Amino acid sequence: MLAVHLENRRVQVRNVRRPERPKGFALIRMLVSGICNTDLELQRGYYGFRGTPGHEFVGEVVGADNPDLLGRRVVAEINLACGKCDWCRRGLGRHCPARTVLGIVRHPGAFREFLTMPETNLHIVPDSISDETAVFVEPLAAACEVLDQANIPDGADVAVLGDGKLGLLIAQVLNARRKSVQLYGRHKNKLRIAERVGVQVKMPKGRLPAAAFDWVVEATGSQQGLQDAMRIARPRGTVFLKSTIHGSARFDTVPLIVNELTFVGSRCGRFEPAMSLLRSRAINVADMISDSMPLAQARRAFAHAAKPGVLKVLLQGD
Amino acid sequence: MLAVHLENRRVQVRNVRRPERPKGFALIRMLVSGICNTDLELQRGYYGFRGTPGHEFVGEVVGADNPDLLGRRVVAEINLACGKCDWCRRGLGRHCPARTVLGIVRHPGAFREFLTMPETNLHIVPDSISDETAVFVEPLAAACEVLDQANIPDGADVAVLGDGKLGLLIAQVLNARRKSVQLYGRHKNKLRIAERVGVQVKMPKGRLPAAAFDWVVEATGSQQGLQDAMRIARPRGTVFLKSTIHGSARFDTVPLIVNELTFVGSRCGRFEPAMSLLRSRAINVADMISDSMPLAQARRAFAHAAKPGVLKVLLQGD
Repeated sequence: MLAVHLENRRVQVRNVRRPERPKGFALIRMLVSGICNTDLELQRGYYGFRGTPGHEFVGEVVGADNPDLLGRRVVAEINLACGKCDWCRRGLGRHCPARTVLGIVRHPGAFREFLTMPETNLHIVPDSISDETAVFVEPLAAACEVLDQANIPDGADVAVLGDGKLGLLIAQVLNARRKSVQLYGRHKNKLRIAERVGVQVKMPKGRLPAAAFDWVVEATGSQQGLQDAMRIARPRGTVFLKSTIHGSARFDTVPLIVNELTFVGSRCGRFEPAMSLLRSRAINVADMISDSMPLAQARRAFAHAAKPGVLKVLLQGD
Repeated sequence: MLAVHLENRRVQVRNVRRPERPKGFALIRMLVSGICNTDLELQRGYYGFRGTPGHEFVGEVVGADNPDLLGRRVVAEINLACGKCDWCRRGLGRHCPARTVLGIVRHPGAFREFLTMPETNLHIVPDSISDETAVFVEPLAAACEVLDQANIPDGADVAVLGDGKLGLLIAQVLNARRKSVQLYGRHKNKLRIAERVGVQVKMPKGRLPAAAFDWVVEATGSQQGLQDAMRIARPRGTVFLKSTIHGSARFDTVPLIVNELTFVGSRCGRFEPAMSLLRSRAINVADMISDSMPLAQARRAFAHAAKPGVLKVLLQGD
């Protein structure tokens, strides 16, 4: 079968053996997968990654212990947790210290024709959600995570910084959940995607307004974004950090302490709210797909996904 | 009257005119004031400060609109707020955007024989609290602030990093408020002060334990302290940042986001809980006084306060 392999910044498509299915795992035929910024970072050699990336996918179960799963379309929570520790018992396997992570940490990813995942990680995709929509469940769950981490009141003003893939999803999620969102970005065509579902968008010329929002989501992953977030937050405001900044970020602790800001690091989220949002068609993901290519053309797909202005690039399993 | 003057890193004691008392302000004779690390930073030229510093003091009211204040010993909240904005109405004049700050921002400080402060900022000191204890109300209020910012459960394990003045106060406050505190420091004599009131203390040889605390207070004000705090915090843990790090700090956003940590910037606090702790003698401040000198010897006092191993240096008004 075909599988993408990353090594020394190169993207290869290799012919490899179909994986064995361990007990408790499903064998899944990949239907559609999505290239995430994390995949591009793995390609650039961050985290010393080597192997098959890919953690956003929808697939069809072709082998499983649980017969009810056979033939079903599924998406999968990406953290493979031990299931026994305190974190797992609290429903927070996403923080299990023994976890591996699909396509990121010691578990081969979804950019291959067949993959295996624990059956407990799977969520069946209802027929009303297409493959091209279902592939957004994982990033959308990450966007939903901020709602699990803080009680943002309905109608509250929230600034989302960054009109990349994650920023667009976050802005739409918060808007669908009755927050008054202003999305700050630099790309008219990207901002328009969120605008179509009712998000207010801004393309600021100069500096962002100071002390203007109690709630801020930083989704640019840049040094400047972090500074902007600290500037636009009101005293005692909360800044969610959704995007890692490569290398070590410089930041001035004075405004954080003097204004008593709260920074909340935010990563993966639960799949249920994401699935529910997609089922209700509250999120415009269709416009976020820039291109779709067969798995065999993964090298071209990675190159395309890395271009400025490009949003989601999908890989097709067939 | 005598007043300390900071300029170009120099500490001078000048003879100046006694200040006029504006309407709504009390004229206060300074009895005892304390040199804080912030004062040493102002001396080093941070924040472009020039003038009279000093924001920790106890004094006697010698002039006031409110006759009940006359002759009383008082301490004062250091933020001079407008009293009319949203922040002030919410009881958060500490974040009033129009505020000046005693001895820090555009209001001459307490290192002088007489000072003026708004009568609404004053708290009368009960007779049971000595001058040398009352002078700790302001820093102790800052230590108490973490309890106002988060609901730390009784009995929760809390790591406090840093055995300087603020770290010692925070460790004692949290201990008095029924948290299970471990104070990490480098100075046996300083740690002993907290140990005497029942705080567990640690002098780690190598690296701090990883992912060990849900609650961490960073009070070293150092790059290393910030890294240690991120290391010792468990996933989803909360790190209070109490001490600014001079210049811009470097920090790696990856553990913050992957472990979904929360950083809470924390500054000044309400005086009431601090006064109540001092009244109940729950905090060992007596051992934190390294020296006490007359105001006229402020230059020597500043030099002494800056020495390693020295804790609180007091200035006497008489």
